Amino acid sequence: MEHPARCRVATREVAVSHEPFWTEDPAPLLRVEPGFRLADTPSSGHPGFVGGKREGHRALAQGATALADLQERLFACSRLGDERRILLVLQAMDTAGKGGIVKHVMGSVDPQGVQLVAFKKPTDEELAHDFLWRIRREAPEAGMIGVFDRSHYEDVLIGRVRELAPAEEIERRYGAINAFEAELADAGTTIVKVMLHISRDEQRERLLERLDRPDKHWKFNPGDIDERERWNDYAEAYQVAFDRTSAPHAPWYVVPADHKWYARLAVQHLLIDALDRMQLEWPAADYDVAEQRERLLATG
Amino acid sequence: MEHPARCRVATREVAVSHEPFWTEDPAPLLRVEPGFRLADTPSSGHPGFVGGKREGHRALAQGATALADLQERLFACSRLGDERRILLVLQAMDTAGKGGIVKHVMGSVDPQGVQLVAFKKPTDEELAHDFLWRIRREAPEAGMIGVFDRSHYEDVLIGRVRELAPAEEIERRYGAINAFEAELADAGTTIVKVMLHISRDEQRERLLERLDRPDKHWKFNPGDIDERERWNDYAEAYQVAFDRTSAPHAPWYVVPADHKWYARLAVQHLLIDALDRMQLEWPAADYDVAEQRERLLATG
Repeated sequence: MEHPARCRVATREVAVSHEPFWTEDPAPLLRVEPGFRLADTPSSGHPGFVGGKREGHRALAQGATALADLQERLFACSRLGDERRILLVLQAMDTAGKGGIVKHVMGSVDPQGVQLVAFKKPTDEELAHDFLWRIRREAPEAGMIGVFDRSHYEDVLIGRVRELAPAEEIERRYGAINAFEAELADAGTTIVKVMLHISRDEQRERLLERLDRPDKHWKFNPGDIDERERWNDYAEAYQVAFDRTSAPHAPWYVVPADHKWYARLAVQHLLIDALDRMQLEWPAADYDVAEQRERLLATG
Repeated sequence: MEHPARCRVATREVAVSHEPFWTEDPAPLLRVEPGFRLADTPSSGHPGFVGGKREGHRALAQGATALADLQERLFACSRLGDERRILLVLQAMDTAGKGGIVKHVMGSVDPQGVQLVAFKKPTDEELAHDFLWRIRREAPEAGMIGVFDRSHYEDVLIGRVRELAPAEEIERRYGAINAFEAELADAGTTIVKVMLHISRDEQRERLLERLDRPDKHWKFNPGDIDERERWNDYAEAYQVAFDRTSAPHAPWYVVPADHKWYARLAVQHLLIDALDRMQLEWPAADYDVAEQRERLLATG
């Protein structure tokens, strides 16, 4: 597909130029490549970043400025006909920090440029349609950063673990997802799929905190423990999803998330990186500036 | 309607207790009361606040913490069945700062708790229905802060000025709006309607800035000048809207907006005030905490 020339320029540097705090670009370090094994991937590190929580928080604030600027350019370009957009897919076990990503990474972006959708247990109406029906309706519009808090991947994760559909149907879904994501990419969507990776021990600590703090009780659900009991089944379902749905136009990133500060910083970088590669410039006016200036002054 | 007792407590102080920087509660100062005249209302003051831009920015950052805390309580209560929610309606002439309110006031709130809708020129499908059809579909869900960037009021503002509907239909709409808002209020919605009030001179300066800065060109539309030429007609249409649709359960506030920092601070306060009056406490667990704690520890 073509993009209006006015919103592109071919000279900007990419990778980590906006965020000098990375010692190494984390994107290739976190990307799922052939041979990736979730079981062998640590959840507690901070690849590409030297420093701890305090430095991480400072870096996140710096990155927030870069992200907000790039997002505004994306939005501006869309007003002049550019079709490009971002889709961030967030998947994780309970307590891994999806909500924190939304709050602390997306929270620094102008809300007008973010299309956030939290997918819950499907309704009866949604179940009466193909599993992608409700997803398609929420795909981000041009110029937006769409965020899926859970997604169509639930249909091959809990769907597989809980046998919510026949095995052949689960099998069919991997191909349907690939076709769907290829379609989104063709329409100008940069897809970034993130699995926040925590250890089973870290989850226990976080669930305990929810039980021990009255202001967190509302975040706990007894069903969370039922899912925890199937930890290994979920790990396997994630592995299969990575194997079957990683593609150059729709890569998976497995982000170590035992340190919340690192997970936020890494996801922020993946977005900055995706936007940077678009080489977004402010769009040129599609009206005569001098003429409009005169018209305005004539109104008094 | 009834709200679950667990989400209410009757002892908290309201008004400006969270925001010590107000010298006087701005809500009653800004509220449209019988006899209000837009034409006599200054757009350049900062009622209830002593200080300038710098103090205003500092105050906004303080208020952001209070707002974020209250919003999380509202959201938490809804998870346990509380039906309450907020609807902020933003109306204004072009450049008055609706976008800045969304970015700088709503931007400090967890995006998961905000339902933002920017109403554009109606589509053919929307025009084929009653003017409230598209509005109803976007009314905020329980626990959310809904924000309408433009709203059903466009249908009695531009609708009236541009004669987009017969005079009798415009007349009918005031009553339809009142009935609709009463219905929302009955369903647990606290409605806060804000008109950002700028002077005609201030608008000229802001439009000029958009024309003089290449990174702002995309925000300018030649149609903005056409609307500016009908400034007085719009002022009259706003006056009629205030006269016909101000109600105790759906008050209008006219916020002086020549100083952007003040407008943001004032709207932030109106939201804090609305939430404070709900006297939101963290909801009690609807499960046995000790029992779940044991279950969790048994999983290892």
